[in-house]
Amino acid sequence: MPPIRAAGRPSDNLPMGEFDLIDRYFKRPATRNALGVGDDCALLSPGAGMQLAVTCDMLVEGRHFLPTVDPFKLGHKALAVNLSDLAACGAEPLAFTLALALPFADAAWLEPFSRGLLALADAHGCELVGGDTTRGPLNICITVFGEVPQGQALLRSGAQVGDDIYVSGTLGDARLALEVFRGTLSVAADAFNAARARLEQPTPRLALGKALRAIANSAIDVSDGLLGDLGHILKQSAVGARIATESAAGLMGAAGAALPVDQRIEYVLAGGDDYELLFTAPPAQRRAVEAAAQAAGTPVTRIGQIEAEAGLRLVDGAGRPIDRRYASFDHFA
Amino acid sequence: MPPIRAAGRPSDNLPMGEFDLIDRYFKRPATRNALGVGDDCALLSPGAGMQLAVTCDMLVEGRHFLPTVDPFKLGHKALAVNLSDLAACGAEPLAFTLALALPFADAAWLEPFSRGLLALADAHGCELVGGDTTRGPLNICITVFGEVPQGQALLRSGAQVGDDIYVSGTLGDARLALEVFRGTLSVAADAFNAARARLEQPTPRLALGKALRAIANSAIDVSDGLLGDLGHILKQSAVGARIATESAAGLMGAAGAALPVDQRIEYVLAGGDDYELLFTAPPAQRRAVEAAAQAAGTPVTRIGQIEAEAGLRLVDGAGRPIDRRYASFDHFA
Repeated sequence: MPPIRAAGRPSDNLPMGEFDLIDRYFKRPATRNALGVGDDCALLSPGAGMQLAVTCDMLVEGRHFLPTVDPFKLGHKALAVNLSDLAACGAEPLAFTLALALPFADAAWLEPFSRGLLALADAHGCELVGGDTTRGPLNICITVFGEVPQGQALLRSGAQVGDDIYVSGTLGDARLALEVFRGTLSVAADAFNAARARLEQPTPRLALGKALRAIANSAIDVSDGLLGDLGHILKQSAVGARIATESAAGLMGAAGAALPVDQRIEYVLAGGDDYELLFTAPPAQRRAVEAAAQAAGTPVTRIGQIEAEAGLRLVDGAGRPIDRRYASFDHFA
Repeated sequence: MPPIRAAGRPSDNLPMGEFDLIDRYFKRPATRNALGVGDDCALLSPGAGMQLAVTCDMLVEGRHFLPTVDPFKLGHKALAVNLSDLAACGAEPLAFTLALALPFADAAWLEPFSRGLLALADAHGCELVGGDTTRGPLNICITVFGEVPQGQALLRSGAQVGDDIYVSGTLGDARLALEVFRGTLSVAADAFNAARARLEQPTPRLALGKALRAIANSAIDVSDGLLGDLGHILKQSAVGARIATESAAGLMGAAGAALPVDQRIEYVLAGGDDYELLFTAPPAQRRAVEAAAQAAGTPVTRIGQIEAEAGLRLVDGAGRPIDRRYASFDHFA
């Protein structure tokens, strides 16, 4: 779309037009797709018997990332959070579109951003097939496409009473790093660096998601906080759950070792930005879950059970209810 | 994704969370798709032998639309500009995702915006299947999915030497309305209202695009201005073209009648925001083009020819070259 008025800035720091910008930083030879960046539409051909899984995330400067973030890491993360949604469906990445609003065409930002973005894309065979660039407050909107065999996608709505509840990897580290950035927490440099890597360059659990296709009954990725995201599964599956908070405390990475146990539990249960998989599977599948986790190289931990009674119950080591509220994020709450 | 810091505004004008917002204004029962809004991914199942056509546009307040625009019309336009890209590929709409950054959850804006958006979506059987909402400077990012039989998509790269060049409908009216909004032009109320409707509620030429599948050699939608968009066809097809500017002058809608002919030609050739189809077809297909236009209810006009010699030549009624430059829009030029 053309702008409604002539460009507000008489001169940019780069004599680069919209089409040059796409060509220089984002255009790559199309392989899997009939058409890559540069036609009215990209054309995708999902395999026979495959469904296309589609998801979309928008990242806003000052809200999802700090203006000071390394653009290379931001490029990685912008795609990673979308790939994490594919992982939660058990889908395999295929392609993505990128829409980018930038205050001005800044090579010092675009070059590392595109490098970080495309490095992760290449690692997962996920092609950039189209998009849009415009002038505006920094905003990154990515839509990714994956494929999954017809009927095999993992859904939020599939949890069954009696299912075990699992989560992959470690949780809460991203929140720890965020609190350090916010100035509310101070930890040793090693701990901070480990946690910061989780915040800035999360790893989408694609291999695990795919391995869980025939095993898990439901799945979601943990982006807004474990309890909040579990809430989506419970609501859409019309079930309740019981979570053992003591196993939760152990879910934090090494960076959390110095924190009081209550803080660790809070970061694990309501930290957000974790991009781990939260899923449920019948107890009869425990060995299959273990095998899937091993094959994917991603450890998983059993943290609770799905129950018929609505609501989410936190219990201590002796099974006694814990009466404490943990908030998860909501962009308009 | 969660925000990096707690919400900046302690109270919004609405006690509405991100998930409520999606439910209230955008959630609809899924029909064609296995999953609608609300899972990690939407699942799409393109028909057998179909390719998926994907395109994406980002609209920024103050750049693509005025803060004062009627949100109902903005909802229409945000989807229309994307559907126009599907039309240019000859694809049929299937579904779309919506990512929305809003300064705050404003029911007075969201209600008409979603109504305008979904009215156009319903008219074309295009389902909202997913998206994202976040707080931030107003930004609307839509990705649409269409389907087109394998190998039948209209491409920018297909123009052949000797092809006729056509454009659908009328051009330049949106530019006229924009100039009135900018305060550089004053026209009668009737003329302004007609032109304003073209600017604010463009009609994607989907029926025409589909009817041209087996007839046209190349196509693009006119969004940045006729000459600029023709330039993309010429570049990607490695050909040149000759355009008869006198036929161009006649392409403006009734709103342009009061303008000097030079201004009409400029608005037609470089106005932008037209969302008409620009396409090429062999002279042997003239009757088929006419029939397609009639069947689609969208008139088309022959405005020039594709030539082997590179470059774009404007000629007058006697075939003499016209030496004048017309700029088309580029967001970072």
